[in-house]
Amino acid sequence: MTRPGRPPGDRDTRAAILTAARSLFAELGYDKASIRAIARRAGVDAALVHHYYGTKDDLLAAALRLPFEPAGLVLAAMENPDRIGETLAREFFALWESPAVREQMLALARAALTHPVAAEKLRGIVTRESLGPIAARLAFPDAPLRAELVGTHLFGLALGRYGLGLEPLASTDIATLAAAVGPTLQRYLADPELFAP
Amino acid sequence: MTRPGRPPGDRDTRAAILTAARSLFAELGYDKASIRAIARRAGVDAALVHHYYGTKDDLLAAALRLPFEPAGLVLAAMENPDRIGETLAREFFALWESPAVREQMLALARAALTHPVAAEKLRGIVTRESLGPIAARLAFPDAPLRAELVGTHLFGLALGRYGLGLEPLASTDIATLAAAVGPTLQRYLADPELFAP
Repeated sequence: MTRPGRPPGDRDTRAAILTAARSLFAELGYDKASIRAIARRAGVDAALVHHYYGTKDDLLAAALRLPFEPAGLVLAAMENPDRIGETLAREFFALWESPAVREQMLALARAALTHPVAAEKLRGIVTRESLGPIAARLAFPDAPLRAELVGTHLFGLALGRYGLGLEPLASTDIATLAAAVGPTLQRYLADPELFAP
Repeated sequence: MTRPGRPPGDRDTRAAILTAARSLFAELGYDKASIRAIARRAGVDAALVHHYYGTKDDLLAAALRLPFEPAGLVLAAMENPDRIGETLAREFFALWESPAVREQMLALARAALTHPVAAEKLRGIVTRESLGPIAARLAFPDAPLRAELVGTHLFGLALGRYGLGLEPLASTDIATLAAAVGPTLQRYLADPELFAP
């Protein structure tokens, strides 16, 4: 299905398709945004969208892919086990300060509340891709629940700060937030008594 | 604009309009759901929708109104100042266990990420209507930020548990969650050293 002048690796074309898909998914919702309309906005043939991205579900998954690698966050946080909580909070907010990450994550949150594919993607990020590995390394039997306490705390903060613009949360500096929230995350991840009766 | 047989206080008609508005806002999004379509689904005249609910923004605000009074949560939590955190978490989750509250809150969260009127409504719930009064009663100069830490933590947990169905978070009993999260909320609300350098 490749055409002359459009090698399969054509990065500009792929990027144009993803940009069109993201904007149409956001404007119309997943169900109403058609592959044909996405192709039209990207200035390409619908067949090319299928060629590069497969089904509409595949295209949604690609559109929701993060512009960073959650594992990087994990590795940074693991360097000093006594300060995992604060490091994690600081790195997390630092990521969200980037407009590209922020837009992508807010789009993912919006989509996750309405579409199962996006919900599964977000579940994967919160558990398997980012916090699961930290919690597993700390080796508590209830590691997955600990990771979810941390993930939902951070995600709730990010939605309040970047999505809703809650004040003063939105204008508080990252170091202050990380210092306040760090001990909580540390306790959730590393306190053996967390679920003690 | 009132008609024979439709007194202004007609609760069934008002309820039918709200139900129609909620479902169409959810299906089509705020911008695409017209007053005319809402009236048609409710089986009433569009003029009656305007008569009862005013503008479309007013109707959205009414559709997003909570099926509970956040102040009740606050009063329950204030009874025992040493256990505000745990009481608050327990009462909060108990509310969300009701399907009516859950649907309404998830609809509000979805709408808040896409529409300014809903975002302002959610900001109001998190700060002025529920957690602001608790934080203010505790009389720290940074009470609003403390309230936002608590509000976003609880809201993030609820989105993970009820919106995304994260496991094991979704199937963990409320008492266990409240015991784990309570000390965090207590510290955010009542620890004088929270923002100490």
